[in-house]
Amino acid sequence: MLSGDFPFRKVAILGTGLMGGSLAGALKALPVPPEVIGTTVSSDDRVLALERGWVDRFADSNESAVAGVDLAVIAVPPQAVPRVWGEIVGPLPPSAIVTDLSSVKGSLYELYRTSFSALLPLYTSSHPMAGSERTGIASARSDLFSGRTVFLTPFGSEKNTLLPLVRLWQALGANTVPVSPADHDGIVAHISHLPHALSYCLLNLAEKVRQENRYPGFDWKTQKGGSFSDILRIAKSSPELWADIFFQNRTAILDAIESFDREMGVLRETLRRGEPGTLVRLLSEWTAPLSGGNPP
Amino acid sequence: MLSGDFPFRKVAILGTGLMGGSLAGALKALPVPPEVIGTTVSSDDRVLALERGWVDRFADSNESAVAGVDLAVIAVPPQAVPRVWGEIVGPLPPSAIVTDLSSVKGSLYELYRTSFSALLPLYTSSHPMAGSERTGIASARSDLFSGRTVFLTPFGSEKNTLLPLVRLWQALGANTVPVSPADHDGIVAHISHLPHALSYCLLNLAEKVRQENRYPGFDWKTQKGGSFSDILRIAKSSPELWADIFFQNRTAILDAIESFDREMGVLRETLRRGEPGTLVRLLSEWTAPLSGGNPP
Repeated sequence: MLSGDFPFRKVAILGTGLMGGSLAGALKALPVPPEVIGTTVSSDDRVLALERGWVDRFADSNESAVAGVDLAVIAVPPQAVPRVWGEIVGPLPPSAIVTDLSSVKGSLYELYRTSFSALLPLYTSSHPMAGSERTGIASARSDLFSGRTVFLTPFGSEKNTLLPLVRLWQALGANTVPVSPADHDGIVAHISHLPHALSYCLLNLAEKVRQENRYPGFDWKTQKGGSFSDILRIAKSSPELWADIFFQNRTAILDAIESFDREMGVLRETLRRGEPGTLVRLLSEWTAPLSGGNPP
Repeated sequence: MLSGDFPFRKVAILGTGLMGGSLAGALKALPVPPEVIGTTVSSDDRVLALERGWVDRFADSNESAVAGVDLAVIAVPPQAVPRVWGEIVGPLPPSAIVTDLSSVKGSLYELYRTSFSALLPLYTSSHPMAGSERTGIASARSDLFSGRTVFLTPFGSEKNTLLPLVRLWQALGANTVPVSPADHDGIVAHISHLPHALSYCLLNLAEKVRQENRYPGFDWKTQKGGSFSDILRIAKSSPELWADIFFQNRTAILDAIESFDREMGVLRETLRRGEPGTLVRLLSEWTAPLSGGNPP
Protein backbone atom coordinates (compact mmCIF):
# COMPACT_ATOMS: atom_id res chain seq x y z
CA MET A 1 0.00 0.00 0.00
CA LEU A 2 1.26 3.49 -0.75
CA SER A 3 1.79 5.71 2.26
CA GLY A 4 -0.40 8.33 0.58
CA ASP A 5 -3.36 6.00 1.18
CA PHE A 6 -2.85 5.94 4.93
CA PRO A 7 -6.28 6.88 6.24
CA PHE A 8 -5.49 8.55 9.59
CA ARG A 9 -3.78 11.85 10.46
CA LYS A 10 -4.31 12.02 14.22
CA VAL A 11 -4.46 8.88 16.36
CA ALA A 12 -5.16 8.45 20.08
CA ILE A 13 -3.64 5.34 21.63
CA LEU A 14 -5.36 4.75 24.95
CA GLY A 15 -2.89 2.61 26.87
CA THR A 16 0.72 2.64 25.60
CA GLY A 17 1.89 -0.67 27.02
CA LEU A 18 3.41 -3.51 24.99
CA MET A 19 0.68 -3.56 22.32
CA GLY A 20 -0.30 0.12 22.25
CA GLY A 21 3.34 1.16 22.49
CA SER A 22 4.33 -1.11 19.60
CA LEU A 23 1.48 0.35 17.54
CA ALA A 24 2.69 3.89 18.35
CA GLY A 25 6.23 2.93 17.27
CA ALA A 26 4.94 1.29 14.08
CA LEU A 27 2.88 4.39 13.19
CA LYS A 28 5.89 6.63 13.73
CA ALA A 29 7.98 4.42 11.42
CA LEU A 30 5.61 5.15 8.49
CA PRO A 31 6.91 7.43 5.71
CA VAL A 32 4.32 10.06 6.66
CA PRO A 33 3.50 9.29 10.29
CA PRO A 34 0.29 10.53 11.90
CA GLU A 35 0.24 12.58 15.09
CA VAL A 36 0.02 10.22 18.07
CA ILE A 37 -1.57 11.17 21.41
CA GLY A 38 -1.17 8.66 24.22
CA THR A 39 -2.49 7.85 27.67
CA THR A 40 -0.87 5.60 30.25
CA VAL A 41 -0.92 5.01 33.99
CA SER A 42 2.82 4.25 33.96
CA SER A 43 5.16 7.24 34.27
CA ASP A 44 8.08 5.05 33.11
CA ASP A 45 6.19 4.17 29.93
CA ARG A 46 5.38 7.84 29.41
CA VAL A 47 9.04 8.93 29.63
CA LEU A 48 10.22 6.14 27.33
CA ALA A 49 7.48 6.72 24.71
CA LEU A 50 8.35 10.42 24.50
CA GLU A 51 12.12 9.73 24.41
CA ARG A 52 11.66 7.34 21.50
CA GLY A 53 9.44 9.82 19.70
CA TRP A 54 6.69 7.19 19.43
CA VAL A 55 4.11 9.44 21.12
CA ASP A 56 3.91 13.18 20.41
CA ARG A 57 2.22 14.02 23.69
CA PHE A 58 0.39 12.35 26.54
CA ALA A 59 -3.08 13.46 27.61
CA ASP A 60 -4.19 13.45 31.25
CA SER A 61 -7.25 11.35 30.51
CA ASN A 62 -8.81 9.23 27.77
CA GLU A 63 -11.53 11.89 27.45
CA SER A 64 -9.09 14.65 26.56
CA ALA A 65 -6.89 12.35 24.42
CA VAL A 66 -9.57 11.72 21.79
CA ALA A 67 -10.42 15.38 21.07
CA GLY A 68 -9.90 16.01 17.34
CA VAL A 69 -8.60 12.52 16.43
CA ASP A 70 -9.72 10.50 13.40
CA LEU A 71 -8.84 7.16 15.07
CA ALA A 72 -9.02 6.04 18.71
CA VAL A 73 -7.24 2.78 19.58
CA ILE A 74 -8.22 1.26 22.93
CA ALA A 75 -5.19 -0.78 24.04
CA VAL A 76 -6.08 -1.70 27.62
CA PRO A 77 -6.77 -5.20 29.08
CA PRO A 78 -10.07 -6.63 27.70
CA GLN A 79 -12.12 -6.15 30.86
CA ALA A 80 -11.29 -2.40 30.96
CA VAL A 81 -12.47 -1.69 27.37
CA PRO A 82 -16.14 -0.88 28.22
CA ARG A 83 -15.03 1.66 30.85
CA VAL A 84 -12.96 3.45 28.16
CA TRP A 85 -15.98 3.44 25.82
CA GLY A 86 -17.89 5.34 28.47
CA GLU A 87 -15.04 7.83 28.83
CA ILE A 88 -14.58 8.67 25.13
CA VAL A 89 -18.19 8.63 23.98
CA GLY A 90 -18.68 12.34 24.70
CA PRO A 91 -15.51 14.05 23.36
CA LEU A 92 -14.90 11.72 20.38
CA PRO A 93 -15.44 13.48 16.99
CA PRO A 94 -18.50 11.96 15.20
CA SER A 95 -16.37 11.02 12.15
CA ALA A 96 -13.66 9.24 14.19
CA ILE A 97 -13.25 5.48 13.92
CA VAL A 98 -12.73 3.39 17.06
CA THR A 99 -10.92 0.08 17.46
CA ASP A 100 -9.53 -1.98 20.32
CA LEU A 101 -6.89 -4.72 20.49
CA SER A 102 -8.78 -7.20 22.65
CA SER A 103 -8.11 -10.91 22.33
CA VAL A 104 -11.74 -11.91 23.03
CA LYS A 105 -14.65 -10.45 21.06
CA GLY A 106 -17.96 -12.19 21.87
CA SER A 107 -18.71 -10.75 25.32
CA LEU A 108 -17.37 -7.34 24.26
CA TYR A 109 -19.59 -7.37 21.18
CA GLU A 110 -22.68 -8.21 23.25
CA LEU A 111 -22.04 -5.22 25.50
CA TYR A 112 -21.36 -3.01 22.49
CA ARG A 113 -24.53 -4.14 20.71
CA THR A 114 -26.79 -3.56 23.70
CA SER A 115 -25.26 -0.31 25.04
CA PHE A 116 -22.81 1.41 22.68
CA SER A 117 -23.77 0.72 19.06
CA ALA A 118 -25.68 4.01 18.75
CA LEU A 119 -22.99 5.96 20.65
CA LEU A 120 -19.90 4.60 18.84
CA PRO A 121 -21.24 3.53 15.43
CA LEU A 122 -17.87 3.61 13.59
CA TYR A 123 -16.34 0.61 15.33
CA THR A 124 -14.24 -2.33 14.09
CA SER A 125 -12.44 -4.42 16.70
CA SER A 126 -8.84 -5.55 15.97
CA HIS A 127 -6.83 -8.49 17.27
CA PRO A 128 -3.19 -8.62 16.19
CA MET A 129 -1.80 -12.16 16.56
CA ALA A 130 1.38 -10.74 18.01
CA GLY A 131 2.55 -10.05 21.51
CA SER A 132 4.94 -11.21 24.13
CA GLU A 133 4.95 -12.65 27.62
CA ARG A 134 6.50 -9.30 28.64
CA THR A 135 4.60 -6.08 29.32
CA GLY A 136 5.21 -2.33 29.05
CA ILE A 137 6.60 -0.13 26.33
CA ALA A 138 10.19 -1.14 27.22
CA SER A 139 9.43 -4.49 25.52
CA ALA A 140 7.47 -2.90 22.65
CA ARG A 141 8.79 -3.19 19.08
CA SER A 142 7.82 -1.06 16.11
CA ASP A 143 7.96 -4.17 13.86
CA LEU A 144 5.75 -6.27 16.15
CA PHE A 145 2.95 -6.54 13.57
CA SER A 146 5.09 -7.14 10.50
CA GLY A 147 4.15 -10.43 8.85
CA ARG A 148 1.50 -11.18 11.49
CA THR A 149 -2.23 -11.70 11.10
CA VAL A 150 -4.67 -9.12 12.47
CA PHE A 151 -8.25 -10.36 12.86
CA LEU A 152 -10.76 -7.59 12.16
CA THR A 153 -14.27 -7.85 13.58
CA PRO A 154 -16.71 -5.11 12.53
CA PHE A 155 -18.91 -4.21 15.52
CA GLY A 156 -20.82 -1.22 14.18
CA SER A 157 -23.57 -1.42 11.58
CA GLU A 158 -21.52 1.07 9.51
CA LYS A 159 -19.51 -1.52 7.55
CA ASN A 160 -17.27 1.13 5.98
CA THR A 161 -15.13 1.16 9.13
CA LEU A 162 -13.48 -2.07 8.00
CA LEU A 163 -11.55 -0.73 5.01
CA PRO A 164 -9.67 2.07 6.85
CA LEU A 165 -8.54 -0.49 9.46
CA VAL A 166 -7.48 -2.93 6.74
CA ARG A 167 -5.36 -0.10 5.34
CA LEU A 168 -3.96 0.78 8.75
CA TRP A 169 -2.78 -2.74 9.58
CA GLN A 170 -1.56 -3.50 6.07
CA ALA A 171 0.52 -0.30 6.14
CA LEU A 172 2.21 -1.79 9.25
CA GLY A 173 3.03 -5.01 7.37
CA ALA A 174 0.23 -7.21 8.77
CA ASN A 175 -2.20 -9.51 6.95
CA THR A 176 -5.82 -8.76 7.82
CA VAL A 177 -8.56 -11.40 8.16
CA PRO A 178 -12.18 -10.29 8.71
CA VAL A 179 -14.14 -12.56 11.08
CA SER A 180 -17.36 -12.51 13.08
CA PRO A 181 -17.12 -12.24 16.90
CA ALA A 182 -18.09 -15.91 17.38
CA ASP A 183 -15.66 -17.22 14.74
CA HIS A 184 -12.89 -15.03 16.14
CA ASP A 185 -13.35 -16.46 19.63
CA GLY A 186 -13.48 -20.03 18.32
CA ILE A 187 -10.27 -19.54 16.33
CA VAL A 188 -8.25 -17.97 19.15
CA ALA A 189 -9.59 -20.55 21.64
CA HIS A 190 -7.75 -23.14 19.51
CA ILE A 191 -4.57 -21.35 18.43
CA SER A 192 -3.90 -19.10 21.42
CA HIS A 193 -6.00 -19.83 24.53
CA LEU A 194 -5.66 -23.64 24.40
CA PRO A 195 -1.83 -23.41 24.08
CA HIS A 196 -1.85 -21.23 27.20
CA ALA A 197 -4.09 -23.70 29.05
CA LEU A 198 -1.75 -26.58 28.14
CA SER A 199 1.25 -24.60 29.30
CA TYR A 200 -0.28 -23.74 32.68
CA CYS A 201 -1.31 -27.35 33.30
CA LEU A 202 2.10 -28.73 32.29
CA LEU A 203 3.89 -26.27 34.56
CA ASN A 204 1.67 -27.10 37.52
CA LEU A 205 2.06 -30.85 36.94
CA ALA A 206 5.87 -30.62 36.79
CA GLU A 207 5.97 -28.52 39.96
CA LYS A 208 3.67 -30.98 41.73
CA VAL A 209 5.91 -33.92 40.74
CA ARG A 210 8.92 -31.97 42.04
CA GLN A 211 7.25 -31.05 45.35
CA GLU A 212 6.11 -34.63 45.94
CA ASN A 213 9.74 -35.72 45.40
CA ARG A 214 8.38 -38.51 43.23
CA TYR A 215 11.77 -38.81 41.52
CA PRO A 216 14.63 -38.03 43.92
CA GLY A 217 16.81 -35.23 42.53
CA PHE A 218 14.20 -34.12 39.98
CA ASP A 219 13.97 -30.38 39.36
CA TRP A 220 12.35 -29.19 36.13
CA LYS A 221 13.86 -25.73 36.59
CA THR A 222 17.38 -26.95 35.89
CA GLN A 223 16.73 -30.21 34.03
CA LYS A 224 14.23 -29.21 31.37
CA GLY A 225 15.11 -29.58 27.69
CA GLY A 226 14.01 -27.54 24.73
CA SER A 227 10.42 -28.78 24.43
CA PHE A 228 9.52 -28.04 28.06
CA SER A 229 11.20 -24.60 27.85
CA ASP A 230 9.23 -23.73 24.71
CA ILE A 231 5.90 -24.54 26.35
CA LEU A 232 6.89 -22.90 29.62
CA ARG A 233 7.60 -19.55 27.98
CA ILE A 234 3.86 -19.31 27.28
CA ALA A 235 3.01 -19.58 30.99
CA LYS A 236 5.17 -16.52 31.74
CA SER A 237 2.41 -14.17 30.54
CA SER A 238 0.55 -12.20 33.21
CA PRO A 239 -1.84 -14.53 35.13
CA GLU A 240 -4.25 -11.59 35.73
CA LEU A 241 -4.50 -10.80 32.01
CA TRP A 242 -4.90 -14.46 31.11
CA ALA A 243 -7.50 -15.16 33.80
CA ASP A 244 -9.46 -12.28 32.25
CA ILE A 245 -9.08 -13.71 28.73
CA PHE A 246 -9.95 -17.25 29.90
CA PHE A 247 -13.00 -15.98 31.78
CA GLN A 248 -14.31 -13.96 28.85
CA ASN A 249 -13.81 -16.80 26.35
CA ARG A 250 -14.58 -19.72 28.66
CA THR A 251 -17.32 -21.30 26.51
CA ALA A 252 -15.13 -21.50 23.38
CA ILE A 253 -12.13 -22.62 25.46
CA LEU A 254 -14.13 -25.42 27.11
CA ASP A 255 -15.16 -26.58 23.61
CA ALA A 256 -11.53 -26.48 22.42
CA ILE A 257 -10.36 -28.43 25.49
CA GLU A 258 -13.03 -31.07 24.79
CA SER A 259 -11.84 -31.38 21.17
CA PHE A 260 -8.23 -31.54 22.37
CA ASP A 261 -9.13 -34.34 24.80
CA ARG A 262 -10.48 -36.38 21.90
CA GLU A 263 -7.09 -36.12 20.11
CA MET A 264 -5.31 -37.08 23.34
CA GLY A 265 -7.71 -40.02 23.60
CA VAL A 266 -6.64 -41.24 20.14
CA LEU A 267 -2.96 -40.95 21.08
CA ARG A 268 -3.55 -42.65 24.45
CA GLU A 269 -5.44 -45.53 22.84
CA THR A 270 -2.64 -45.98 20.28
CA LEU A 271 -0.05 -46.04 23.08
CA ARG A 272 -2.17 -48.57 25.01
CA ARG A 273 -2.43 -50.92 22.05
CA GLY A 274 1.37 -50.77 21.83
CA GLU A 275 1.80 -51.43 18.10
CA PRO A 276 4.89 -49.51 16.91
CA GLY A 277 3.68 -49.45 13.29
CA THR A 278 0.35 -47.83 14.20
CA LEU A 279 2.16 -45.23 16.29
CA VAL A 280 4.55 -44.29 13.46
CA ARG A 281 1.60 -43.97 11.06
CA LEU A 282 -0.33 -41.79 13.51
CA LEU A 283 2.53 -39.36 14.19
CA SER A 284 3.49 -39.23 10.50
CA GLU A 285 -0.10 -38.43 9.55
CA TRP A 286 -0.45 -35.80 12.29
CA THR A 287 2.79 -34.04 11.39
CA ALA A 288 2.28 -34.20 7.60
CA PRO A 289 0.80 -30.64 7.48
CA LEU A 290 4.17 -29.33 8.71
CA SER A 291 6.02 -30.49 5.61
CA GLY A 292 3.44 -29.76 2.90
CA GLY A 293 2.14 -26.44 1.60
CA ASN A 294 2.98 -23.24 3.44
CA PRO A 295 5.95 -23.55 5.74
CA PRO A 296 4.53 -23.35 9.29
CA MET B 1 37.26 -29.64 36.15
CA LEU B 2 40.82 -29.38 34.88
CA SER B 3 41.42 -30.70 31.43
CA GLY B 4 44.18 -32.88 32.85
CA ASP B 5 41.48 -34.90 34.58
CA PHE B 6 39.74 -35.74 31.32
CA PRO B 7 39.42 -39.51 31.51
CA PHE B 8 39.44 -40.57 27.82
CA ARG B 9 42.15 -40.50 25.16
CA LYS B 10 40.45 -42.34 22.30
CA VAL B 11 36.70 -42.18 21.76
CA ALA B 12 34.48 -43.96 19.23
CA ILE B 13 31.25 -42.14 18.36
CA LEU B 14 28.94 -44.63 16.70
CA GLY B 15 26.52 -42.42 14.77
CA THR B 16 27.69 -38.83 14.10
CA GLY B 17 24.29 -37.18 13.60
CA LEU B 18 22.99 -34.20 15.53
CA MET B 19 23.81 -35.60 19.00
CA GLY B 20 26.90 -37.68 18.18
CA GLY B 21 28.22 -34.93 15.92
CA SER B 22 27.75 -32.28 18.61
CA LEU B 23 29.57 -34.55 21.08
CA ALA B 24 32.45 -34.94 18.60
CA GLY B 25 32.62 -31.15 18.17
CA ALA B 26 32.51 -30.61 21.94
CA LEU B 27 35.32 -33.12 22.51
CA LYS B 28 37.49 -31.45 19.86
CA ALA B 29 36.93 -28.06 21.55
CA LEU B 30 38.59 -29.35 24.77
CA PRO B 31 42.07 -27.99 25.60
CA VAL B 32 43.54 -31.47 25.11
CA PRO B 33 41.05 -33.21 22.83
CA PRO B 34 40.90 -37.00 22.57
CA GLU B 35 41.21 -38.87 19.28
CA VAL B 36 37.71 -39.31 17.81
CA ILE B 37 36.75 -42.21 15.53
CA GLY B 38 33.30 -42.02 13.96
CA THR B 39 30.79 -44.11 12.06
CA THR B 40 27.86 -42.86 10.02
CA VAL B 41 25.58 -44.03 7.24
CA SER B 42 25.49 -40.50 5.79
CA SER B 43 28.28 -39.57 3.38
CA ASP B 44 27.34 -35.87 3.74
CA ASP B 45 27.80 -36.08 7.49
CA ARG B 46 31.13 -37.86 7.00
CA VAL B 47 32.49 -35.12 4.72
CA LEU B 48 31.32 -32.33 7.02
CA ALA B 49 32.64 -33.96 10.21
CA LEU B 50 36.10 -34.39 8.66
CA GLU B 51 36.10 -30.85 7.22
CA ARG B 52 35.29 -29.41 10.64
CA GLY B 53 37.99 -31.53 12.26
CA TRP B 54 35.42 -32.95 14.69
CA VAL B 55 36.20 -36.57 13.72
CA ASP B 56 39.77 -37.75 13.05
CA ARG B 57 38.72 -40.68 10.91
CA PHE B 58 35.65 -42.73 10.03
CA ALA B 59 35.64 -46.51 10.40
CA ASP B 60 33.76 -48.75 7.96
CA SER B 61 31.83 -50.44 10.75
CA ASN B 62 31.01 -50.12 14.44
CA GLU B 63 33.09 -53.29 15.02
CA SER B 64 36.27 -51.76 13.62
CA ALA B 65 35.59 -48.30 15.15
CA VAL B 66 35.89 -49.49 18.74
CA ALA B 67 39.28 -51.21 18.41
CA GLY B 68 41.66 -49.65 20.96
CA VAL B 69 39.23 -47.03 22.35
CA ASP B 70 38.73 -46.26 26.04
CA LEU B 71 35.16 -44.96 25.45
CA ALA B 72 32.46 -46.03 23.00
CA VAL B 73 29.47 -43.68 22.63
CA ILE B 74 26.42 -45.21 20.92
CA ALA B 75 24.57 -42.27 19.34
CA VAL B 76 21.94 -44.02 17.21
CA PRO B 77 18.12 -43.97 17.60
CA PRO B 78 17.04 -45.89 20.76
CA GLN B 79 15.68 -48.96 18.97
CA ALA B 80 19.02 -49.49 17.17
CA VAL B 81 21.16 -49.50 20.35
CA PRO B 82 20.94 -53.28 21.09
CA ARG B 83 22.08 -54.09 17.55
CA VAL B 84 25.19 -51.93 18.13
CA TRP B 85 25.85 -53.74 21.44
CA GLY B 86 25.98 -56.99 19.50
CA GLU B 87 28.41 -55.49 16.98
CA ILE B 88 30.93 -54.05 19.46
CA VAL B 89 30.92 -56.75 22.10
CA GLY B 90 33.77 -58.70 20.43
CA PRO B 91 36.31 -56.03 19.42
CA LEU B 92 35.77 -53.64 22.38
CA PRO B 93 38.82 -53.52 24.73
CA PRO B 94 37.89 -55.04 28.15
CA SER B 95 38.79 -51.79 29.97
CA ALA B 96 36.69 -49.54 27.67
CA ILE B 97 33.59 -47.83 29.06
CA VAL B 98 30.38 -47.78 27.00
CA THR B 99 27.58 -45.23 27.02
CA ASP B 100 24.61 -44.35 24.81
CA LEU B 101 22.53 -41.18 24.41
CA SER B 102 19.08 -42.78 24.43
CA SER B 103 16.11 -40.81 25.71
CA VAL B 104 14.37 -43.90 27.17
CA LYS B 105 16.14 -46.23 29.62
CA GLY B 106 13.75 -48.81 31.11
CA SER B 107 13.30 -51.18 28.18
CA LEU B 108 16.96 -50.79 27.17
CA TYR B 109 18.06 -51.61 30.72
CA GLU B 110 15.91 -54.75 30.80
CA LEU B 111 17.55 -56.00 27.61
CA TYR B 112 20.99 -55.09 28.95
CA ARG B 113 20.38 -56.84 32.26
CA THR B 114 19.16 -60.06 30.69
CA SER B 115 21.58 -60.31 27.74
CA PHE B 116 24.54 -57.91 27.88
CA SER B 117 25.50 -57.22 31.52
CA ALA B 118 28.23 -59.88 31.47
CA LEU B 119 29.45 -58.88 27.98
CA LEU B 120 29.54 -55.07 28.47
CA PRO B 121 30.03 -54.67 32.25
CA LEU B 122 31.45 -51.12 32.13
CA TYR B 123 28.24 -49.38 31.09
CA THR B 124 26.55 -46.14 32.15
CA SER B 125 23.79 -44.80 29.96
CA SER B 126 23.66 -41.00 29.26
CA HIS B 127 20.78 -38.73 28.31
CA PRO B 128 21.70 -35.12 27.55
CA MET B 129 18.64 -32.84 27.86
CA ALA B 130 19.66 -31.07 24.71
CA GLY B 131 18.79 -31.52 21.10
CA SER B 132 16.89 -29.99 18.27
CA GLU B 133 14.03 -30.74 15.95
CA ARG B 134 16.71 -30.86 13.22
CA THR B 135 18.90 -33.83 12.41
CA GLY B 136 22.37 -34.47 11.01
CA ILE B 137 25.79 -33.02 11.75
CA ALA B 138 24.99 -29.87 9.73
CA SER B 139 22.75 -28.81 12.66
CA ALA B 140 25.21 -30.04 15.32
CA ARG B 141 26.82 -27.53 17.70
CA SER B 142 29.94 -28.03 19.78
CA ASP B 143 28.31 -26.08 22.65
CA LEU B 144 25.07 -28.10 22.57
CA PHE B 145 25.62 -29.55 26.07
CA SER B 146 26.85 -26.39 27.77
CA GLY B 147 24.60 -25.50 30.72
CA ARG B 148 22.33 -28.50 30.08
CA THR B 149 21.52 -31.44 32.32
CA VAL B 150 22.78 -34.91 31.45
CA PHE B 151 20.99 -37.76 33.22
CA LEU B 152 23.37 -40.64 33.97
CA THR B 153 21.97 -44.11 34.57
CA PRO B 154 24.51 -46.79 35.57
CA PHE B 155 23.56 -50.07 33.85
CA GLY B 156 26.54 -52.27 34.78
CA SER B 157 27.14 -53.68 38.23
CA GLU B 158 30.60 -51.99 38.06
CA LYS B 159 29.55 -48.68 39.65
CA ASN B 160 32.94 -47.06 38.91
CA THR B 161 31.80 -46.33 35.35
CA LEU B 162 29.74 -43.40 36.65
CA LEU B 163 32.61 -41.10 37.69
CA PRO B 164 34.45 -41.06 34.32
CA LEU B 165 31.17 -40.14 32.59
CA VAL B 166 30.44 -37.42 35.17
CA ARG B 167 33.90 -36.03 34.31
CA LEU B 168 33.27 -36.30 30.57
CA TRP B 169 29.98 -34.39 30.61
CA GLN B 170 31.14 -31.83 33.15
CA ALA B 171 34.19 -31.11 30.97
CA LEU B 172 31.70 -30.24 28.21
CA GLY B 173 29.87 -27.79 30.50
CA ALA B 174 26.90 -29.98 31.46
CA ASN B 175 25.40 -30.69 34.89
CA THR B 176 25.11 -34.40 35.62
CA VAL B 177 22.25 -36.02 37.56
CA PRO B 178 22.44 -39.75 38.40
CA VAL B 179 19.05 -41.53 38.21
CA SER B 180 17.69 -45.07 38.08
CA PRO B 181 16.19 -46.31 34.78
CA ALA B 182 12.62 -46.08 36.14
CA ASP B 183 13.06 -42.59 37.61
CA HIS B 184 14.71 -41.42 34.39
CA ASP B 185 11.78 -42.58 32.31
CA GLY B 186 9.25 -41.03 34.69
CA ILE B 187 11.06 -37.69 34.63
CA VAL B 188 11.41 -37.47 30.84
CA ALA B 189 7.81 -38.64 30.38
CA HIS B 190 6.80 -35.42 32.16
CA ILE B 191 9.34 -32.87 30.90
CA SER B 192 9.98 -34.10 27.38
CA HIS B 193 7.60 -36.79 26.10
CA LEU B 194 4.39 -35.19 27.41
CA PRO B 195 5.27 -31.80 25.80
CA HIS B 196 5.73 -33.66 22.51
CA ALA B 197 2.38 -35.45 22.93
CA LEU B 198 0.62 -32.12 23.62
CA SER B 199 2.24 -30.57 20.56
CA TYR B 200 1.20 -33.42 18.22
CA CYS B 201 -2.40 -33.32 19.50
CA LEU B 202 -2.65 -29.53 19.22
CA LEU B 203 -1.30 -29.60 15.66
CA ASN B 204 -3.73 -32.30 14.61
CA LEU B 205 -6.67 -30.50 16.23
CA ALA B 206 -5.85 -27.21 14.50
CA GLU B 207 -5.47 -28.96 11.14
CA LYS B 208 -8.80 -30.78 11.66
CA VAL B 209 -10.58 -27.48 12.45
CA ARG B 210 -9.04 -25.97 9.31
CA GLN B 211 -10.02 -28.91 7.09
CA GLU B 212 -13.59 -28.92 8.43
CA ASN B 213 -13.77 -25.20 7.54
CA ARG B 214 -15.37 -24.68 10.94
CA TYR B 215 -14.37 -21.00 10.84
CA PRO B 216 -14.39 -19.62 7.27
CA GLY B 217 -10.98 -18.18 6.40
CA PHE B 218 -9.20 -19.93 9.27
CA ASP B 219 -5.67 -21.15 8.54
CA TRP B 220 -3.36 -21.83 11.48
CA LYS B 221 -0.33 -21.82 9.16
CA THR B 222 -0.57 -18.09 8.52
CA GLN B 223 -2.64 -16.91 11.49
CA LYS B 224 -0.88 -18.47 14.46
CA GLY B 225 0.65 -16.26 17.15
CA GLY B 226 3.66 -16.85 19.35
CA SER B 227 2.20 -19.46 21.69
CA PHE B 228 1.01 -21.78 18.92
CA SER B 229 4.35 -21.39 17.08
CA ASP B 230 6.30 -22.27 20.23
CA ILE B 231 4.34 -25.48 20.76
CA LEU B 232 4.39 -26.34 17.07
CA ARG B 233 8.19 -26.25 16.86
CA ILE B 234 8.17 -29.34 19.08
CA ALA B 235 6.08 -31.32 16.56
CA LYS B 236 8.72 -30.74 13.86
CA SER B 237 10.93 -33.49 15.29
CA SER B 238 11.14 -36.74 13.31
CA PRO B 239 7.88 -38.72 13.70
CA GLU B 240 9.79 -42.02 13.30
CA LEU B 241 12.19 -41.17 16.14
CA TRP B 242 9.37 -39.98 18.37
CA ALA B 243 7.13 -42.96 17.64
CA ASP B 244 10.07 -45.09 18.78
CA ILE B 245 10.54 -43.02 21.96
CA PHE B 246 6.77 -43.02 22.69
CA PHE B 247 6.57 -46.76 22.13
CA GLN B 248 9.51 -47.54 24.41
CA ASN B 249 8.26 -45.28 27.20
CA ARG B 250 4.54 -45.78 26.74
CA THR B 251 3.77 -46.87 30.32
CA ALA B 252 5.37 -43.78 31.89
CA ILE B 253 3.84 -41.51 29.20
CA LEU B 254 0.35 -42.93 29.83
CA ASP B 255 0.83 -42.19 33.54
CA ALA B 256 1.99 -38.64 32.77
CA ILE B 257 -1.00 -38.06 30.44
CA GLU B 258 -3.33 -39.25 33.19
CA SER B 259 -1.75 -36.82 35.67
CA PHE B 260 -1.94 -34.05 33.07
CA ASP B 261 -5.64 -34.77 32.54
CA ARG B 262 -6.24 -34.23 36.25
CA GLU B 263 -4.71 -30.73 36.01
CA MET B 264 -6.80 -30.01 32.91
CA GLY B 265 -9.83 -31.20 34.87
CA VAL B 266 -9.13 -28.63 37.60
CA LEU B 267 -8.79 -25.85 35.02
CA ARG B 268 -11.92 -27.00 33.18
CA GLU B 269 -13.96 -27.10 36.39
CA THR B 270 -12.76 -23.59 37.31
CA LEU B 271 -13.74 -22.33 33.84
CA ARG B 272 -17.16 -24.01 34.20
CA ARG B 273 -17.84 -22.41 37.55
CA GLY B 274 -17.08 -19.06 35.90
CA GLU B 275 -15.84 -17.14 38.95
CA PRO B 276 -13.19 -14.66 37.79
CA GLY B 277 -11.59 -14.44 41.26
CA THR B 278 -11.09 -18.22 41.50
CA LEU B 279 -9.54 -18.25 38.03
CA VAL B 280 -7.04 -15.48 38.87
CA ARG B 281 -6.06 -17.31 42.07
CA LEU B 282 -5.60 -20.61 40.22
CA LEU B 283 -3.38 -19.16 37.45
CA SER B 284 -1.41 -17.04 39.94
CA GLU B 285 -0.78 -20.10 42.11
CA TRP B 286 0.17 -22.27 39.13
CA THR B 287 2.60 -19.72 37.69
CA ALA B 288 4.16 -18.76 41.05
CA PRO B 289 7.11 -21.20 40.58
CA LEU B 290 8.16 -19.14 37.55
CA SER B 291 8.86 -16.05 39.62
CA GLY B 292 10.34 -17.59 42.77
CA GLY B 293 13.67 -19.37 43.23
CA ASN B 294 15.74 -20.35 40.23
CA PRO B 295 14.85 -18.46 37.09
CA PRO B 296 13.13 -20.97 34.79
